[in-house]
Amino acid sequence: MPTANAYAAFSATEPLGPWSLTRREAGPNDVEIEILFCGVCHTDIHFVRNELGNAVYPMVPGHEIVGEVRAVGSAVTKYKVGDRVGVGCFVDSCRTCPQCQAGEEQYCDAGARFTYNAPEADGVGVTYGGYSTQITVDENYVVRIPDSLPLDAAAPLLCAGITTYSPLRHFGLQAGQRIGVVGLGGLGHMGVKFAKAMGAHVTVLSTSPSKEADALRLGADAFLATGDGTVFESHAGTFDFIMDTVSASHDLHGYLNLLKVDGTMIVLGIGDPAPLSNMPLIFRRRRLVGSLIGGIRETQEMLDFCGQHGIVCDIELITMPQINEAYERMLRSDVRYRFVIDLASLKG
Amino acid sequence: MPTANAYAAFSATEPLGPWSLTRREAGPNDVEIEILFCGVCHTDIHFVRNELGNAVYPMVPGHEIVGEVRAVGSAVTKYKVGDRVGVGCFVDSCRTCPQCQAGEEQYCDAGARFTYNAPEADGVGVTYGGYSTQITVDENYVVRIPDSLPLDAAAPLLCAGITTYSPLRHFGLQAGQRIGVVGLGGLGHMGVKFAKAMGAHVTVLSTSPSKEADALRLGADAFLATGDGTVFESHAGTFDFIMDTVSASHDLHGYLNLLKVDGTMIVLGIGDPAPLSNMPLIFRRRRLVGSLIGGIRETQEMLDFCGQHGIVCDIELITMPQINEAYERMLRSDVRYRFVIDLASLKG
Repeated sequence: MPTANAYAAFSATEPLGPWSLTRREAGPNDVEIEILFCGVCHTDIHFVRNELGNAVYPMVPGHEIVGEVRAVGSAVTKYKVGDRVGVGCFVDSCRTCPQCQAGEEQYCDAGARFTYNAPEADGVGVTYGGYSTQITVDENYVVRIPDSLPLDAAAPLLCAGITTYSPLRHFGLQAGQRIGVVGLGGLGHMGVKFAKAMGAHVTVLSTSPSKEADALRLGADAFLATGDGTVFESHAGTFDFIMDTVSASHDLHGYLNLLKVDGTMIVLGIGDPAPLSNMPLIFRRRRLVGSLIGGIRETQEMLDFCGQHGIVCDIELITMPQINEAYERMLRSDVRYRFVIDLASLKG
Repeated sequence: MPTANAYAAFSATEPLGPWSLTRREAGPNDVEIEILFCGVCHTDIHFVRNELGNAVYPMVPGHEIVGEVRAVGSAVTKYKVGDRVGVGCFVDSCRTCPQCQAGEEQYCDAGARFTYNAPEADGVGVTYGGYSTQITVDENYVVRIPDSLPLDAAAPLLCAGITTYSPLRHFGLQAGQRIGVVGLGGLGHMGVKFAKAMGAHVTVLSTSPSKEADALRLGADAFLATGDGTVFESHAGTFDFIMDTVSASHDLHGYLNLLKVDGTMIVLGIGDPAPLSNMPLIFRRRRLVGSLIGGIRETQEMLDFCGQHGIVCDIELITMPQINEAYERMLRSDVRYRFVIDLASLKG
């Protein structure tokens, strides 16, 4: 059985440190992947620190995985040795529920099998993620990275990318429409790139005026500092879409009122519940909607879209031992805009 | 100038009492209507008691108006003397904004001119509503009551009817889909009738088990008592739509979790803000949406639909002097399901 070097969390409070684990032998439908890069998602911190209450240790986080195929099972048809591939937030699902049949495995009725900290298919142990040198995944849950994209900067597309791409497509952002992106972090900066590539007029809304230059550099057409709240009055009723990427609990009313009649606010971040009045929804027939990553088919569509438009994430490459420092910096929002681990630092 | 007998509120705290008012002469595009019946909407109480802080007294409430045309202006083409007509929540709008152009005058950028307590077009005085014997309205803001419908029971269609019909159409309820209607009052009982006539499987959800018999009589396929909360677990993920007609502030999470993936919760009632988590929206890509009455074109469509399907409101007919008692009963939810004033009681 293939052995992989890894970094693992051993409890909710200790720093992550070196570990090794055994991956399964490739079954007929499996692809063995040498992991080259893995993005660092804020979710990793939530899981590592057991903020969801379901942590199993040792835990190997990481669900923004890219690498190369090193072996394939006898029945694999989609991939061959040497292919550049990715694995996102889940590695399996029931395959029979309406959502799986529709290619929206992220909403699987049985629950998609997440890439780490999820019970394994055989009921023994849990899944281990991308802070490691190797992973074995069913070919149906693997996606192809376009040749034109650098692997390191493509890694966060597997979560931050699809999380922002999917709702823009599903809820129907059209060229020429006006969208506001709230929060310029890992998700927000990808939302700007995608919305711009889809032909929308993009405004970044942020409490930090210092982010204006970066917002414009990333392709935004406009920037609104929300700190003093005046923009909620001056720009009320002017947006077709608001994409809210902020994870901390915050008031939604100001953002809802920025929407036109029939406008749509997409929320992607999870904080504590915040008070909501029905009034901004009722008086302008607005929609408040959520969205969770994306299915395999749409993730491939997103990667191909990125290949065509030259879209990748803005990243800061780190070595595996730097992960604990990276977590601390993420908690201070001190990253533009995604850390990516170079797994070469775990090899040898 | 035509004089009308009316009942008016003279302050936020006194009972309503007799008054008389002068309606404008019919201009070229106007229709003079003898009001025969007027429904009593909960909104009337909010306005009379100045709960919105914008009351102008004397106030003549009433925006569920039906009657017969008694005179028409020289340029009127749609109506003639003797026609059975209705007037709903607004009597004019800017006619030029995108929503007015689209026939969605309820979302007029300048604000639709509400049927009562709104500034008059000439800036002098306010509009007076249907607790009166006569009203003069531009023909473009008048609708036709199908001959097959009794006028008294048709009156509340102008508000309670269109408020429930419009979102079912706009958000796309399909035959065979499952919808839950929360609250069996003036709005809820119309929601049941419309959803059933559209071919949906209709479940009434209510905290009052005593409403089960009425729910089934009104056409519901099922009834769920929500008092002990167990139905939120046992029926999670089983509805395509939830239509929430409850005005009081309440927790939405249980209802949101009743929705399938991509399900839609329509909120129609306004209460104080209630805490909302993004989680039930994100994890099943659900939509939380609002809707406000409907435009003139859709109100006519709704009335024609009612004519074809024999749909009217369940009403209790009262005389004008009974209005104060009716308000008290409405505040106790002691009405099945709408009071309608017989304006014959104001004549002579």
